[in-house]
This record gives sequence, C-alpha cells and structure tokens, in this order.
Amino acid sequence: MYERRGGGLILSCSDESDLRLAEIVRELEIPVVLLDRELPVAWAHRVLVDHRQGIVEAVDHLATLGHRRIGFVGGTLVIRPGRERHQAFKAATVLHGLWDEQLVQLGPLTPEFGRLGAATLLSAPDPPTALIATDNRQSTGVLLALVGSGLQMPDDISFVGCGDVEALALHNPPITILNRPVEELGAEAAKLLLASLATATTDPIDRPVTRVLGSHLLIRKSTDFPRRAMRTAGAIR
Amino acid sequence: MYERRGGGLILSCSDESDLRLAEIVRELEIPVVLLDRELPVAWAHRVLVDHRQGIVEAVDHLATLGHRRIGFVGGTLVIRPGRERHQAFKAATVLHGLWDEQLVQLGPLTPEFGRLGAATLLSAPDPPTALIATDNRQSTGVLLALVGSGLQMPDDISFVGCGDVEALALHNPPITILNRPVEELGAEAAKLLLASLATATTDPIDRPVTRVLGSHLLIRKSTDFPRRAMRTAGAIR
Repeated sequence: MYERRGGGLILSCSDESDLRLAEIVRELEIPVVLLDRELPVAWAHRVLVDHRQGIVEAVDHLATLGHRRIGFVGGTLVIRPGRERHQAFKAATVLHGLWDEQLVQLGPLTPEFGRLGAATLLSAPDPPTALIATDNRQSTGVLLALVGSGLQMPDDISFVGCGDVEALALHNPPITILNRPVEELGAEAAKLLLASLATATTDPIDRPVTRVLGSHLLIRKSTDFPRRAMRTAGAIR
Repeated sequence: MYERRGGGLILSCSDESDLRLAEIVRELEIPVVLLDRELPVAWAHRVLVDHRQGIVEAVDHLATLGHRRIGFVGGTLVIRPGRERHQAFKAATVLHGLWDEQLVQLGPLTPEFGRLGAATLLSAPDPPTALIATDNRQSTGVLLALVGSGLQMPDDISFVGCGDVEALALHNPPITILNRPVEELGAEAAKLLLASLATATTDPIDRPVTRVLGSHLLIRKSTDFPRRAMRTAGAIR
C-alpha cells in the first residue's frame, strides 16, 4: 500500500523482505515516510508504534490474574509489527515462566487465519485459558472462533483483542484490547512528510527522523481470572 | 551497567535475555530510562539509536564503490544494537545481491573478538574487499588486525569502523566511521529521567516515551573502490 501526496510518499507494505519494493523506494527522489515498517532505505523517515508496551502489559495483566497458559495469535515476522509483538510476547512470557512455543500461531493478517489459529490453539490437548490477538483482522477471526465455540468470556476463556476501540467496547462483554495510536500515526506521518517537503530544496534526506508512538492495554470485561479452571480444580478437591 | 540518580535509573545491559535484570527493574518503583536496550518492562522510557541508517549507508557506500564481498564484524543478537545492525546489514546486502552468511562474524563486544573476527574473514579462501565493524571495542580490534596484517587501506581493503570521532580522524588514513549520537543519547536519557521524576507524584509510568536518534556514515579515506582487486583483474586481462 502506498499513496502519493504531492511529491512525497507515506508507505506501508505487507512484506519488508520484498526486494522490489525497497528498490523502487530507493529510486524515488522524493521524501518518504515509512508507516511502522523497516526497509533498507537509510534516508526514509519513520513513524513507528512501540507494540512492545501493549503486549507486555497484556501478558502482565493475564499472568497477574493467574493465567498460566496464554495463547498468542500474531502476524508473520516479515514485517516489523509482527517481529516486535512476537519478541515482546516471548520476553514477557519467559519472564513469567509461561513461555510455550506450542501456544503461538503466526500467519497472514486475515480473519481466516485468526479463526484458524484460535481453533488450533483451543483444540489442543492442553488449551490456553487466555488468548491474545495482536492484529485487527486476525482479532476479528479469533473473536468469531470464540463466539462460535460457545466458550464464555471471561468465564471459560480470557481474550485480549485488537481493533476498533468503539466497536469492541460495544461487544458483550466489552473486549479488553491492545490500543494503538492509529490516528496519531497518520497525523505524525503527514506532519513529517509536510516538514520534509518544506525543506526539500535544501537536503530532505540528510536527517531522517524516527518517531515512536506508544501502545497500551485497555482493560475491559473479556479478561478475568481463569474462573472455569479454578471452579473445576475446586470441584475436584 | 546501571546508575542511580536520585530516585531514577538510567539503564543499559549486556544481555537483554538476562531474566534477573528484567525482574529487578520491574520491582523498582522509580522511573527508568533504557539506553538503547529492550526489556519486557512496559512502563520504561527508552532512548534508542537507529543503527539501521548508518549500516545501510555503509553498505550502499561500499556497494557503490564496487565492493562485492563486504565483511561484517558485529555483536551477538542478545542486545538490541546487535540485532538491529545485523538485520540492517542483511537487508541492505540482500538488496544489493551481496549477502553471504560466510562474511558475518558475531561475537562479544571486545577488541579481542574484533581482531579474531577480522582475521577469520581475511584468511578465508575468498576474503572480503571491505570490512564493517559496528561496535567501538570490536572496531579497535579489527583495526589492529588490519594494521598487523600489512594490508593497506584503502588500496588492499576498505574499512568502516566505529568509535571516537576525533581519534579515528587522526588515524592514517582517516577512518570512515559509523557515527552515533553518543552525547545526545546521554542528554536525552537525562532529560527523560528528569521529566519523569518531576511528574512522579502523579503517574510517571502511565505514558512511556521512546526517542530514536539517528546514526550516520561519516566518509573519510579508509574506504574507496577495491583498487587491488581491480588492478589484479586489469593485469590478468
């Protein structure tokens, strides 16, 4: 995805390892702002999201509630957000002693993969008691899988989703989400591009600028302590 | 390495995968600024260096001069700078069709490893015509290996080093370097910590801030087209 705006470019892409894209960008002689992406273009400006914060907050939140098996549905490692979210999830779960590679599903950023990833995790012999979905589209699929499975949130499973703040607040129960600064991201990119265009006659590519915007966990009602697991344990004793 | 400054902490570390460190930092109830490091601590501020820029500029510079075999001596992947530099080197050399895993030496940030890594690369059957050293201490070792080998810069080999701007300018020939904003890094960290301390009574950990500072190639005389290789080729024809 890329769009021209009067001699400048705000660019995202679905695969940073696509050589042709980096080659095209390098051939351009206009200011470029990368939207949460890495390309081997030394002079491009960047507006990045610190996905680490939200993911670490989500793992801390779930671990504090008592979850010991936290599932993760995320994107592949060919783009920066996928790499950063996966790395943060691994670091935070390792720190809590909860890392288990079997609980990770990485794939394309589609509702289909989200649904498939969640179904795979939930049908495992020792399924997770909580799921984190890190991408908007995957999150929709995970939510569909949860609703379709008949599992109750948060009684049977806790869910941290990602996506439209308002829509997921209206869900029953309201969904705990990874909240990203989507509007700020666009605004910052536009600001950088305009500033770069304004100085284009001197040397626009001399000082690439990188802005990093935070991400946060927005806690609602879809996450709670693992109730069903605790009730079962109580009944057995 | 960490230092207390009146209720705040500016922190770097030699291994981000050291669990004990992340645990200690999480237990602190004071503002923390990470210096070019990643730890699974959602509320820590960060001052990061965009190492990508300098590395991509170095690869572009050498590739444009005609180098086809570019060696890389870098740190291990347990800290952010090591990961980011290696990833940038790989992306940029892949883009130029020059990637060769055999030309990469990753190890501890010591002059000893720098010397060893350079010696290993230079003694290979098809040695590089250019070397990039990405860390100060490793760079010193690589330079020692080059001087000790009797190879002339830039006639026999091109060298991109890293380290003290002034000292490496005084070398004969003056060394092309990866220039990092070392002073700015400390100043930004101090500024963030002071700002965080000033607001500590309200909620210092609510909005972690990330600042990213650029890195750049500073071209001097230790890099040029692969002269010896070209002379030899000319003589053979």
